[in-house]
Amino acid sequence: MAFPNALKRLIEVLCRFPGVGPKTAQRLAFFLLGCSREEVVTIARAMVDAKDKLTFCEVCGCLSEKEGCAYCQDSKRDKSLICVLQEPRDVLVLERTGQYRGLYHVLHGALSPLDGIGPEELKLDRLVNRIKEEGINEVIIATNPNVEGDATAGYLARLLKPLEIRVTRIAFGLPVGGDIEYADDLTLSRALEGRREM
Amino acid sequence: MAFPNALKRLIEVLCRFPGVGPKTAQRLAFFLLGCSREEVVTIARAMVDAKDKLTFCEVCGCLSEKEGCAYCQDSKRDKSLICVLQEPRDVLVLERTGQYRGLYHVLHGALSPLDGIGPEELKLDRLVNRIKEEGINEVIIATNPNVEGDATAGYLARLLKPLEIRVTRIAFGLPVGGDIEYADDLTLSRALEGRREM
Repeated sequence: MAFPNALKRLIEVLCRFPGVGPKTAQRLAFFLLGCSREEVVTIARAMVDAKDKLTFCEVCGCLSEKEGCAYCQDSKRDKSLICVLQEPRDVLVLERTGQYRGLYHVLHGALSPLDGIGPEELKLDRLVNRIKEEGINEVIIATNPNVEGDATAGYLARLLKPLEIRVTRIAFGLPVGGDIEYADDLTLSRALEGRREM
Repeated sequence: MAFPNALKRLIEVLCRFPGVGPKTAQRLAFFLLGCSREEVVTIARAMVDAKDKLTFCEVCGCLSEKEGCAYCQDSKRDKSLICVLQEPRDVLVLERTGQYRGLYHVLHGALSPLDGIGPEELKLDRLVNRIKEEGINEVIIATNPNVEGDATAGYLARLLKPLEIRVTRIAFGLPVGGDIEYADDLTLSRALEGRREM
């Protein structure tokens, strides 16, 4: 006895979610079948609704409501500062700190030649134009501390050099509350490199 | 900067999925926002579609298409045999073995007094009526090998005693391909208990 077609189809689409394999998809599918029709419609509608109401800002790439980007339009922000991030969700992590009050530029990815993601795919020329046109003084690069993020940061630093603005990258080192004993070699090397006068 | 409302709502509904916490829900939400509208609609539609086309059989509790239950209507099945299971997805696991050709009865749960699930919630009287009316000879109990499953199996055995039919429970023991060295104490005790003449 095979799965009914509608169930097969449901499992197949649920498998598209990141981190969801066939087993998890099956579990989620049976959960949905156990819900009332009303509940399933609520979930389905929330998905389409979010997609209809939200978009990514054409200027900075941040998640924004369709009416306009809350970051670009915020008059209290420091408009001479741009923080470059890989993913839209990273913006929320930075916002949570309450420490950053500049603009954002989300790349929606990182350089990865093996996956065919080069400077064109990340639309880095847009970032360069933006820096020129908006009179930016400093670009803070906050790509991920891994191979792709490092490559992207390095490429950006070289690309922005002729603009004669300040280009910085957020610091790497021991996580606060961490224990040196458990720090990995790479993090510790970076922490040594990044040491500061006390 | 807080999440836009449509995103908050989406994360909230995604959190209803089993095993999905706020972090995973956020990840799934951003994945959906990164999809095209068409893809999101496809996922949403597959959910509602499955719910509209599939139901649980009123007789045996199995997942079935709305036109009728494939298990109850299958003329090739042994109609004197019922296998009692906790969840509809367990049926598919049993079917996969190709070894079982009787009917099913899905309880949609197990006895769990702490969660307020008693014999009424599992509609055990329906099972008893079914056994009486359909002339069942044997009931195979295949509830889960844990506290709730054991309690349910024990309760069912007592409940079915007066019907004077054969009531069995699937065997517990070492998983095939397993290693005695790694067997836990409980499994090994059960395997000893269930030993058979060679």
